[in-house]
Amino acid sequence: MTQVRITGLEARDIRFPTSDHADGSDAMHPDPDYSAAYVVLRTNVEGLEGHGLTFTIGRGNELCVDAARSLARLVVGRTLDGIVQDFAGFWRALASDSQLRWVGPEKGVIHLATAAIVNAAWDLYAKSERKPLWKLVVDMSPEQLVSSLDFRYVTDALPREDALDILRDSRSQRAAREAQMRAQGYPAYTTSAGWLGYPDDKIRTLCRKGIAEGWNHFKIKVGADLADDLRRAAIVREEIGPRRKLMFDANQRWDVGAAIENMKELARFDPWWIEEPTSPDDVLGHAAIARAIAPIGVATGEQCQNRVMFKQLLQADAIKFCQIDSCRLGGLNEVLTVMLLARRFGVPVCPHAGGVGLCEYVNHLVMIDYICISGSLENRVAEFVSHLHEHFENPSVVRNGHYTVPEAPGYGITMKRASLEEFEHPDGPVWAARAAR
Amino acid sequence: MTQVRITGLEARDIRFPTSDHADGSDAMHPDPDYSAAYVVLRTNVEGLEGHGLTFTIGRGNELCVDAARSLARLVVGRTLDGIVQDFAGFWRALASDSQLRWVGPEKGVIHLATAAIVNAAWDLYAKSERKPLWKLVVDMSPEQLVSSLDFRYVTDALPREDALDILRDSRSQRAAREAQMRAQGYPAYTTSAGWLGYPDDKIRTLCRKGIAEGWNHFKIKVGADLADDLRRAAIVREEIGPRRKLMFDANQRWDVGAAIENMKELARFDPWWIEEPTSPDDVLGHAAIARAIAPIGVATGEQCQNRVMFKQLLQADAIKFCQIDSCRLGGLNEVLTVMLLARRFGVPVCPHAGGVGLCEYVNHLVMIDYICISGSLENRVAEFVSHLHEHFENPSVVRNGHYTVPEAPGYGITMKRASLEEFEHPDGPVWAARAAR
Repeated sequence: MTQVRITGLEARDIRFPTSDHADGSDAMHPDPDYSAAYVVLRTNVEGLEGHGLTFTIGRGNELCVDAARSLARLVVGRTLDGIVQDFAGFWRALASDSQLRWVGPEKGVIHLATAAIVNAAWDLYAKSERKPLWKLVVDMSPEQLVSSLDFRYVTDALPREDALDILRDSRSQRAAREAQMRAQGYPAYTTSAGWLGYPDDKIRTLCRKGIAEGWNHFKIKVGADLADDLRRAAIVREEIGPRRKLMFDANQRWDVGAAIENMKELARFDPWWIEEPTSPDDVLGHAAIARAIAPIGVATGEQCQNRVMFKQLLQADAIKFCQIDSCRLGGLNEVLTVMLLARRFGVPVCPHAGGVGLCEYVNHLVMIDYICISGSLENRVAEFVSHLHEHFENPSVVRNGHYTVPEAPGYGITMKRASLEEFEHPDGPVWAARAAR
Repeated sequence: MTQVRITGLEARDIRFPTSDHADGSDAMHPDPDYSAAYVVLRTNVEGLEGHGLTFTIGRGNELCVDAARSLARLVVGRTLDGIVQDFAGFWRALASDSQLRWVGPEKGVIHLATAAIVNAAWDLYAKSERKPLWKLVVDMSPEQLVSSLDFRYVTDALPREDALDILRDSRSQRAAREAQMRAQGYPAYTTSAGWLGYPDDKIRTLCRKGIAEGWNHFKIKVGADLADDLRRAAIVREEIGPRRKLMFDANQRWDVGAAIENMKELARFDPWWIEEPTSPDDVLGHAAIARAIAPIGVATGEQCQNRVMFKQLLQADAIKFCQIDSCRLGGLNEVLTVMLLARRFGVPVCPHAGGVGLCEYVNHLVMIDYICISGSLENRVAEFVSHLHEHFENPSVVRNGHYTVPEAPGYGITMKRASLEEFEHPDGPVWAARAAR
């Protein structure tokens, strides 16, 4: 059989003009254009490619594209076998290049680009094995899986042996859990009703639609103006009734003191969690907020830059919900490390999704987490937002408030060729037409 | 008088092939090519420009250049008066652009580029006032200075009023402290002797040379191999005698447990501090190391991404020395905030320098810190490395182990035109000749 070799890395700037309709608007990001720095790993085997993307919200996407190109020299020329046999080494080579690491390290533009490439490598691996990614991973032995992880900087909280133990413990349950996922799916929640830019009547309509579709968790954006937040929270609580869960998301708008004060007001609507109450970098701030507002839980992670920050959020009892992001972290390898850390600390993983492509990634991640790491659905829900799925060859499917099991080979992130061409920035027809106006 | 308006932003990729001689080599960065993403703000006034740079170590510099160009639309067209009258607002506009912040926020490539631009704006301001930057700042009223700072995310540790109090307290002392700085300078230390790639005899020679030049603090790189570290530490301690200070710098090579174990061995050479013992992101890890190795101090900061991380290092008693970096933080505004935070917690600021241009920046920062913030020289030394100063129009000058007071207008970072042309990457003569080989 031919050895699969990576012969080229293509990076494209793909943007969707979502700011036209306030989809995705929040207190910190009022006008996002959901975007992808889209990476294709070409190979010597006809028809076999690895696709990955990192999600951004518009301007700045070009920097992630540039960074993927800067990383290409570390990838092109490698064989798939070589990568897979030392996936931790491959990951370290990208995350810790002796010169490039200075402009991170393991954070921001360079780490977002690393995620796109690393996820593309996993997609390539899964496609070459003709399995959906989650299935490829849950079929790996504990030893093989652990050998793909870089434990640097987390051994004080997660020794390699402990990670192995967690994975070994799950082995006898995997088949049953897999069957359970196929039968019932993984619980999801929706943010589609709660964007900050939506008028009140649209919020009511979307709540009713959500209930009819089977949703039990509803999240709304807060943080721009307390009076407005109280009004909108009242509307949603009224619509969803006392038993369904209501979550708030402040998107980092508050300082620590303000977060505590505002949550004392918002507590009257019985929120399940407050998400991103302050800076994503403020571990001790999150811990102070968590102590002050218990039993309301603190959730964060969509902008948590790497496993070192998640480790500390867990060590400091700062979060009750661990919201890993599939491309803010440096791709699947680091996501797995954080899922294992969360399991070690007994904190449920509730992945961040939405944007473009995040639901497609998360669909695989929740299956892996349930089947071979957490083994629990208690207090676990994965975000789902209904936008932009039409651009993917194998979009994630949610039914009755649950993510269904993906069956197509790969990591699910391959976009349709027509979408890539139409939305390429700045020269695709959608953007060229705007520039001409 | 003509209003000064920014008419253009030029960003250039300048690199020096320092990896040829192992200058600057350490356990994590064995082959740095000291580089600058160099920004020039052009104005409508003939001969008046603002210059700033961010320092990197080679590959990845192009990403900071790209990011500076992505930020240009937030800068070009503004008047200098408009910037200066709301410097905090200008800073926030760059650091928190509604779309660009996603690829940070306030960290990595985008924040490094922000620093180059913000520092160029201060350079422009100081040149327009015909003052060296440090003098411009120490002549500002406490109210004016505080109005230029963004307190977002640090109000729990440094309320604006406390910052004002610190600055007001210093007012009566400023003239005397300024005279003292002119008379004796600010204490510095050297890292020139301790790069990891240097052979033992070169280390001995450089120690003797350093002592002859009046240095009292010597820092060496550790972390690649404990036996090697012990041998080199013994050489340096033997050369410098028991009374001069010896510092170690591990450049993030250790996990928390390894840092504690290795420092127990290295403690026999009576180190003053251990710098970057582990990940720059690991606040709680630094705190654990600090508790375990006291009274040896923990120092970090050259890769500490922003004021939120420094706030936590201070809150957690994780550092005994605060090593701000003049372009890792988002330019002078954020550096000032961190200096005020350090003063609030009683921790001395010992700036990181070296690279290319960092000593030139730091020369101004230490004057500001002493004259209007800390008012103390106790346990304070600023790094000095003797490379690459010849490329600057007004290089920092160290005499008898002390930084002297800069007198030329501006922030001191303007490079000679001939150097910019010679070392531009990849088309300047130095790099073109290498590519041709």
